[in-house]
Amino acid sequence: MPLEPALFILFGTTGDLARKKLYPALYALHTAGHLAPQTAILGIGRRDWDDTKYRETIVASLRAAEPAAHLDDTTFTSRFFYHRMDMAVQEDYTGLWDHMIRLETERQLGGNRINFLATAPELFPVASRQIGLNRHPGQGSFRRLMIEKPFGQDLASARSFNESLREVFPEHEIYRIDHYLGKAMLQNILVLRFANQLFEPGWNRQHIDHIQVSVTEPFGIEQRGGYYDNSGALRDMVQSHLLQLLALLTMDRPGGDTPEEIRNAKVSLLRALRPFDADRAMTEVVLGQYDGDSRTRGYLDEANIPAGSRTETFAALRLSIDNDRWRDVPVYMRTGKRLNRYDAKIVIVFKHQPYPGSAKESGRNTLIIRIQPQEGIDLRFNIKQPGMTTAITQAHMDICQSCDPVVPSPQAYEKLLYDAWSGDLSLFTRWDEIEATWTLVDSIRQWRKQLPLFRYTPGSNGPVAADRLLARDGRAWLNL
Amino acid sequence: MPLEPALFILFGTTGDLARKKLYPALYALHTAGHLAPQTAILGIGRRDWDDTKYRETIVASLRAAEPAAHLDDTTFTSRFFYHRMDMAVQEDYTGLWDHMIRLETERQLGGNRINFLATAPELFPVASRQIGLNRHPGQGSFRRLMIEKPFGQDLASARSFNESLREVFPEHEIYRIDHYLGKAMLQNILVLRFANQLFEPGWNRQHIDHIQVSVTEPFGIEQRGGYYDNSGALRDMVQSHLLQLLALLTMDRPGGDTPEEIRNAKVSLLRALRPFDADRAMTEVVLGQYDGDSRTRGYLDEANIPAGSRTETFAALRLSIDNDRWRDVPVYMRTGKRLNRYDAKIVIVFKHQPYPGSAKESGRNTLIIRIQPQEGIDLRFNIKQPGMTTAITQAHMDICQSCDPVVPSPQAYEKLLYDAWSGDLSLFTRWDEIEATWTLVDSIRQWRKQLPLFRYTPGSNGPVAADRLLARDGRAWLNL
Repeated sequence: MPLEPALFILFGTTGDLARKKLYPALYALHTAGHLAPQTAILGIGRRDWDDTKYRETIVASLRAAEPAAHLDDTTFTSRFFYHRMDMAVQEDYTGLWDHMIRLETERQLGGNRINFLATAPELFPVASRQIGLNRHPGQGSFRRLMIEKPFGQDLASARSFNESLREVFPEHEIYRIDHYLGKAMLQNILVLRFANQLFEPGWNRQHIDHIQVSVTEPFGIEQRGGYYDNSGALRDMVQSHLLQLLALLTMDRPGGDTPEEIRNAKVSLLRALRPFDADRAMTEVVLGQYDGDSRTRGYLDEANIPAGSRTETFAALRLSIDNDRWRDVPVYMRTGKRLNRYDAKIVIVFKHQPYPGSAKESGRNTLIIRIQPQEGIDLRFNIKQPGMTTAITQAHMDICQSCDPVVPSPQAYEKLLYDAWSGDLSLFTRWDEIEATWTLVDSIRQWRKQLPLFRYTPGSNGPVAADRLLARDGRAWLNL
Repeated sequence: MPLEPALFILFGTTGDLARKKLYPALYALHTAGHLAPQTAILGIGRRDWDDTKYRETIVASLRAAEPAAHLDDTTFTSRFFYHRMDMAVQEDYTGLWDHMIRLETERQLGGNRINFLATAPELFPVASRQIGLNRHPGQGSFRRLMIEKPFGQDLASARSFNESLREVFPEHEIYRIDHYLGKAMLQNILVLRFANQLFEPGWNRQHIDHIQVSVTEPFGIEQRGGYYDNSGALRDMVQSHLLQLLALLTMDRPGGDTPEEIRNAKVSLLRALRPFDADRAMTEVVLGQYDGDSRTRGYLDEANIPAGSRTETFAALRLSIDNDRWRDVPVYMRTGKRLNRYDAKIVIVFKHQPYPGSAKESGRNTLIIRIQPQEGIDLRFNIKQPGMTTAITQAHMDICQSCDPVVPSPQAYEKLLYDAWSGDLSLFTRWDEIEATWTLVDSIRQWRKQLPLFRYTPGSNGPVAADRLLARDGRAWLNL
């Protein structure tokens, strides 16, 4: 079913996000027949390009991202137009509005506009303010603003940005992106939890021993030294992806499945996360920075990293949720770069259920929700060991959703563009969620000067201190 | 590890059970190294055979049952000896005792004796009484009696047989066989239920909607007309295999895993089964008898079936368990011959867990425990449908235990012989279990003259009335 015709205005045409994610996502929507014939994309940048040159760069990007793409006919690329301007300069926007009106008239677009901010974060405030002020007169048409993370650098800057946004946009026009929420397996968490009698009644402290969330990457910071050194693992990953994922995983059952009901449930959970005081930060936070070896550079030797930088490329946390459902169920979270695997997953470890009598050992039930590189659900439970014995062993059952070639999972940005285009806010974060996540992350970051910054070997599991975080509780990371 | 040396005395050498099950089971124990070198088997029959002839029939039986058996050397067959006698004649037993002592002396067996009654059931009382009276003087050795089903024809005959048994045997020497309990998947039920946090807390009326137990066979009564017409599905299958299976599936958690604790839990469950009065028999029992078609005979045309026999070859029941765990959770049970599949399985249907809101349909969680032809566990639960949609679909996870070629499940009789040899009574039925199951089956059978006997087409699902039994409750048999 085609989405409503619209003008998609892309602020930031040459960055990684546009090249690696947005062009492929738009192409996927195009080939799936979701884009109306008249729908157009207006790319904005500072380079001295014209439409032809812009379209050539899009073809080049797509050929790199998806070698199998069919780009011989121009039905896709002819949707693209280019507008040159400096987004930092207020006066430059008048020409943009003229260009937009011209395209909308020519292509009979009816006035629907989706603005996507894929620029450097410094440009978010000025660009969004100009877009907001340009109240356009289309009757019955929609205006939407999609904003990439980071949404602020801390609670204060996020709040200030949000206030300026809210002067010119109502909340329902703001689509704050956390691309993890676009991943099929994250949407699956809600179904898994709330549509299964096997899981829902036991999703609490009576039945679950602890939770592990791991998002690990083998690569370093690559070309993003300038951005990354101002960010670090806590801001770049924990405040956004990991806490969003945790909210879906542990929130109470929402009253319904509307975007507001789901976001209400998420924000209640995020507010129940216990902030860190100095004592807890010292014992329940582990920060690290990767060293180099013969093949790869250490963080301090990467391009654009200031000498002696103390930015963390690894973080492990022991989180506590102060509500009735989760009291005394720790959530262990870790994320980092230059680790030994590319892996995002959740491990739910159920409480031990001893077999009657004392003679037989049994392991804990474990549910593994795999997010990347492959999406899947893996359940480990106890069965009788095959053969004459009566001993107990663990059986593994799994489904691999992304292995199913019949209906591949859409990529995150394909789903997010589709939802924003449809006006579905479910997978976008509301201001109060941002507020709650920055509150938690700030409570950790305020102690970072006092916290040790552990070195770790590239290709390892991170600092040994992250293992101690669990070992102290008699547990261990499950590298399943 | 070899079992203790013993003399295995097999009453009934030429029947189906010996040929198809016991010789292969003994062969499996032999090849696995479980039989001590001196262990011998003394087969008893009326035919005029000697050891050589007897060994030839064993080789022939094994070649038929297991074409891959290696029988070229005589290490297995030289364990077998033959004794000719009429088991119905009391005077014939003196010669048997002499033969046994002779073998025990020659082979230095130390006096351990396992008596296995695999004869026609009519001979059980006389043979077991003679064995029991022959109190043999071996010091520190064991004497055990293994008895095939049927244990009686109803409560009165079972009680009378049991009383005569108990005059000459203590309960702990009596191994009443229900070969279903030897199946690996039945032993697995206990681990599945009692060693998994995912299942144990929810194994009750709060979480389970209903239970289905199906044991269906495509074949007819074959050569067993004489036996079967006196038995029927209720006596042949329900009183034994199906109720034993149900007891394991629904009993309360036993205090420990000793044989007595497990059997205590089973018998409590069996006693909680609500007996049938006339009203319930009319509405909650469906009996059937198979017709013939162009390829197969109807039951009434089979060999040795009296004209107009009303013996049921199919039974479906709606059982109620009167305890706190299972109140209002019906158990639907069916078994029959000449049906459309060879299949023994349990289906646990969990209660519906509606997704928040009203827009999304979700199916019920279902756990399928497969007993034959293959052993496995199959779990169906709800996930998000792949693709751009947010609709819900069912995922299937399964493990197939008998598919694993590394450690094949032992055959039922191999396991039962091993356990009896080891003195482990866990998988054998105690008298009070027999008493409880006959009490229930008698409560149905007392109404059988008044109950309709539905005809059914060979290769079908049985009488349509069996479908109505569930349809009336808004349910259906799950032929998964």
